Amino acid sequence: MSAASQARRRRGPDELEILVLERGNYASYSACGIPYYVGGDVEELDKLIARTPAEFQDRDIDLRIRAEAVEIDLDGGRVRVRDADGGGERWEHYDDLMVATGAVPKRPRLPGADAKGVHGVQILDDGVAVRRALERDEPRRAVVVGGGYIGLEMAEAMVKRGLEVSIVDAADQPMSTLDPDMGALIADAIRGIGVDLHLGEGVEGFDTAADGSVTAVRTAGRTLPADLVVLGLGVRPNTELARAAGIETGPTGGIVTDRRMRTRADRVWAAGDCVETRHLVSGGPVAIALGTHANKQGRVAGVNLGGGYATFPGVVGTAVSKICRVEVARTGLNEREAAAAGFDALSVAVESTTRAGYHPGATVMTTKLIAERRSGRLLGAQIVGEENAAKRVDGLAIALWNGMTVEEMTGLDLGYAPPFAPVWDPVLIAARKAADAVEADMRREN
Amino acid sequence: MSAASQARRRRGPDELEILVLERGNYASYSACGIPYYVGGDVEELDKLIARTPAEFQDRDIDLRIRAEAVEIDLDGGRVRVRDADGGGERWEHYDDLMVATGAVPKRPRLPGADAKGVHGVQILDDGVAVRRALERDEPRRAVVVGGGYIGLEMAEAMVKRGLEVSIVDAADQPMSTLDPDMGALIADAIRGIGVDLHLGEGVEGFDTAADGSVTAVRTAGRTLPADLVVLGLGVRPNTELARAAGIETGPTGGIVTDRRMRTRADRVWAAGDCVETRHLVSGGPVAIALGTHANKQGRVAGVNLGGGYATFPGVVGTAVSKICRVEVARTGLNEREAAAAGFDALSVAVESTTRAGYHPGATVMTTKLIAERRSGRLLGAQIVGEENAAKRVDGLAIALWNGMTVEEMTGLDLGYAPPFAPVWDPVLIAARKAADAVEADMRREN
Repeated sequence: MSAASQARRRRGPDELEILVLERGNYASYSACGIPYYVGGDVEELDKLIARTPAEFQDRDIDLRIRAEAVEIDLDGGRVRVRDADGGGERWEHYDDLMVATGAVPKRPRLPGADAKGVHGVQILDDGVAVRRALERDEPRRAVVVGGGYIGLEMAEAMVKRGLEVSIVDAADQPMSTLDPDMGALIADAIRGIGVDLHLGEGVEGFDTAADGSVTAVRTAGRTLPADLVVLGLGVRPNTELARAAGIETGPTGGIVTDRRMRTRADRVWAAGDCVETRHLVSGGPVAIALGTHANKQGRVAGVNLGGGYATFPGVVGTAVSKICRVEVARTGLNEREAAAAGFDALSVAVESTTRAGYHPGATVMTTKLIAERRSGRLLGAQIVGEENAAKRVDGLAIALWNGMTVEEMTGLDLGYAPPFAPVWDPVLIAARKAADAVEADMRREN
Repeated sequence: MSAASQARRRRGPDELEILVLERGNYASYSACGIPYYVGGDVEELDKLIARTPAEFQDRDIDLRIRAEAVEIDLDGGRVRVRDADGGGERWEHYDDLMVATGAVPKRPRLPGADAKGVHGVQILDDGVAVRRALERDEPRRAVVVGGGYIGLEMAEAMVKRGLEVSIVDAADQPMSTLDPDMGALIADAIRGIGVDLHLGEGVEGFDTAADGSVTAVRTAGRTLPADLVVLGLGVRPNTELARAAGIETGPTGGIVTDRRMRTRADRVWAAGDCVETRHLVSGGPVAIALGTHANKQGRVAGVNLGGGYATFPGVVGTAVSKICRVEVARTGLNEREAAAAGFDALSVAVESTTRAGYHPGATVMTTKLIAERRSGRLLGAQIVGEENAAKRVDGLAIALWNGMTVEEMTGLDLGYAPPFAPVWDPVLIAARKAADAVEADMRREN
């Protein structure tokens, strides 16, 4: 919808017809808001919907909901569309096609994975289903499979609703995009709100009742009774449609595009969770399903579709989340990713306070920096703390973007006042420690 | 004290004797914490003191309080020291001298300016005096002269203490480091906590009672009864001692140093509020009295005094403050400063929300960017908003530091999650608007 709106701003209805096909019931909504709708922080579903179909009609954008694109015919320049309400199929022709099929939740191929009461969290309809189940069936026990951002946010939402909540994850830590030492802080936070966290335990199956609804989640170690299960195993680019048409995908499974969001197929564009993009630190391709990237890419595609010029440069892997009072942020490469990208890296973690130590409300935050040995180039950062901690990652993302070294960063002129930071901001303290570590490391080598 | 500590870390007591002279009663404290001590958020004075004289003695740093340096004899390599308790004067010899005389509050040369009950806010003793006056004399009405950061923070502190508080400022806005449109938002905030704000009214004098204590503040327009007056007119580098010795000061009045914090006099170093430094955007000298710069410079001087190598690169003019719930931040050049530095600039201001619009607690924040015409280079930024608004300036300060253009900034990978930002962070929205404005401006010209 970002692309459609941008293209419309540049080309009037007499110059460009815009048809949008959406298989679900909603378009232009915040999927990131689903946990807040489930938890009740957001009372009305409408609040998650940025624009209604009627608003798009007013802009001469022909948005059709419950209309699924089921085949792309590149040679014929047409798309086969299936009506979800049994209205049959038809072909729609295009001059330019944009693929924005998003991502699909990873589902384990395990017995019972499709049972009633096992929910994915991807499209708005999923959120509606979970909340309806909570309100109608009054479940008592929920199990979340997967301890990533979405899994943790959904776990917190269900704790708010009064459920007993467990999380199982095959990994030894929640939030595998963090290093283990930082992930341990998240494990503490999630246990702190009363969630049972079972790490290092992959799911082996789901038990079901006679009526086909889920009753328990089985791991190697235990059977967890469950009235409701949420799958938070992450997502993968939804590219079946594109691949079937012969549109090229890359090593991440996402559609390959150039910086203007053109695929390798003529007059076919793509944007959002279904594409892969360039990681500006590793230089390699990544598929990161985040609304902020999708919106930017959509805007870029729309500008280009409308005859303008715009590019999407890539990402540095920034992500933030909140578990109750605990804020968590990461950007760039973690230790594992840095090694995989061929960097010889070191890291430091420092504890400091979010405000001047004497200021009421000052809390502890942990800042970790990963830097390249010898050059001292910043490669990544992770932050776990309370108020005002997570968004400190923005500065680190911008430092990464500009290829700064940790030594250079020690001089940065960051905001200082007692309610916001100690006289040495945690970012500056961490940069100093990292610069010292780089220097000490070089001394050892020489 | 930062310099002394750093030098000691690099040179043991057998290699380097370190003598520190302090004319007041306290060393190594947070002057920025004074308003919070006055307002009672910080109950104990001790909390503002980072290290006691005894702790410095333990590190073999000979800290002498109530010992005032009254003359520097560069040729003789010595300093004349006066004992505040009448113990007379003596000369102390040095191999290396560091001048860290800080800043002094600007005092108006007006009748009654030295009356009892008229307080500056610079050293910790000032804070002690104001709080003692509040607790002992139970004043009812306070007038703050000057609407800068310190003035506003002191006004809020006294509102918390239950006083009727007025602020008078000769300028047409509070916080003159902001542009007038952003200053107006601060005026609203300060009035919102019940402070009477009289702008465009310079003080013409102070009325005093027979016992010499202040009774009112007079402006051209009115007489404001006052039991207590706080001067918040800003500070200037305290360089009388240095200048009398022939140590060079610059156009700002601050001592001139190189990046290693060496003055133009042989073996004399300087750091903190008494020096001027380079503004990395304007390229010109500035004297900005902020604890964060002073600490960094002190550290750099100490590393160099201890035989190491470190430099202070300069500043971009970042400052943050909080008035009740309203956070305010600025960095770089404001419109007036950009023009004075010879830039042809344009600016945009955007209103957006601090969180996703549907997330409970989302509030409005205003982000203003100043960019150079044609090149689109970011020159400065200002933010006024509530929770999580002010520290967004760090990213902007780092963008300035790296000479980014507003166009480049539109692609930045900033942290996004509903509790922290809309899907387009306010900084990204502002960058987009600024980039559009730069482009539109070029079109108009061509």
